[in-house]
Amino acid sequence: MTASPTNTRPGGRSARVRADVHRAVQELLAEEPAEALTLPAIATRAGVHPTTLYRRWGSMAELLGDVATSRFSGDIVVPDTGSLREDLERWATDVATDLADPDVLALMRAAIGSGPTGGCACTADRHAQLAAILDRARSRDGSAPEVGPASDALLGPLYYRAIFTNTPAEPGWPRELVKAMLD
Amino acid sequence: MTASPTNTRPGGRSARVRADVHRAVQELLAEEPAEALTLPAIATRAGVHPTTLYRRWGSMAELLGDVATSRFSGDIVVPDTGSLREDLERWATDVATDLADPDVLALMRAAIGSGPTGGCACTADRHAQLAAILDRARSRDGSAPEVGPASDALLGPLYYRAIFTNTPAEPGWPRELVKAMLD
Repeated sequence: MTASPTNTRPGGRSARVRADVHRAVQELLAEEPAEALTLPAIATRAGVHPTTLYRRWGSMAELLGDVATSRFSGDIVVPDTGSLREDLERWATDVATDLADPDVLALMRAAIGSGPTGGCACTADRHAQLAAILDRARSRDGSAPEVGPASDALLGPLYYRAIFTNTPAEPGWPRELVKAMLD
Repeated sequence: MTASPTNTRPGGRSARVRADVHRAVQELLAEEPAEALTLPAIATRAGVHPTTLYRRWGSMAELLGDVATSRFSGDIVVPDTGSLREDLERWATDVATDLADPDVLALMRAAIGSGPTGGCACTADRHAQLAAILDRARSRDGSAPEVGPASDALLGPLYYRAIFTNTPAEPGWPRELVKAMLD
């Protein structure tokens, strides 16, 4: 018995639909105000039936959470320079650069706006990366700051400025945050 | 000649419409997911004609920005204890308490989600309050931290946690932020 192409690649079509829908969301967010984003508009752009979206994601909040998780995971490489300060400086600078991208901001704003109270999938991977940098420093040097205060000192201002202020991050600013935290 | 009641109170009707619309926005956000929020739904709840909303605010982003500016202005009293540390501790604790209110979070999320890239009216007043506390300390004590780094150290983590994480602020946490900043 020969399996159909769909069956020989489990998730093949499903993965393609997901990729098409994710791309449609990011394209529409880059083109139009967030309030124009609707599940039917996304379905049209992705070339899938609206019921597919409703069945698979249920709501805009679910869908945007999925897109944000996917977009904001694994996109920044955790540095390993042998120095906690330099690791943090490089990593914070990369995060700030990512947050200066208008498409990133548009996706993040839409995910925050649609999401239920409590959490946005945008920063879970950043938090894990910061914990990994600190864990490695702890193994190597015997001690390192805890991830909670480090997140307050670095992720807090980086994301606050991106979302709430019009102040663009100056090139040296992420290093100043690291300095304020370590010194 | 006797002026009509409308004319004797310039802005009277206009101010009432604004108050009704602001209340409608906050009620709807407290009841339903943000994606259910539309200008027609707000008009119905406020008892005004949809064209009034479109004429006055133009878009959901404008309207939510107006509601957020109004809601997040003057609602927290700036303490004046004679001590910078104590002023900051009280103020940061009040900000954290406000941010723990689900209705506050819902309005802030909706304003962020609808807004154009760059800024949300949610924190302009907080920034001005922080600057006032620091200015007073500078006049009194001869020096005080600059408002930029103070905003990074206090507003950053306070708003980051509220929007991006599920971590509720522990009661002592705002004081820890002040300590990390001043010590």
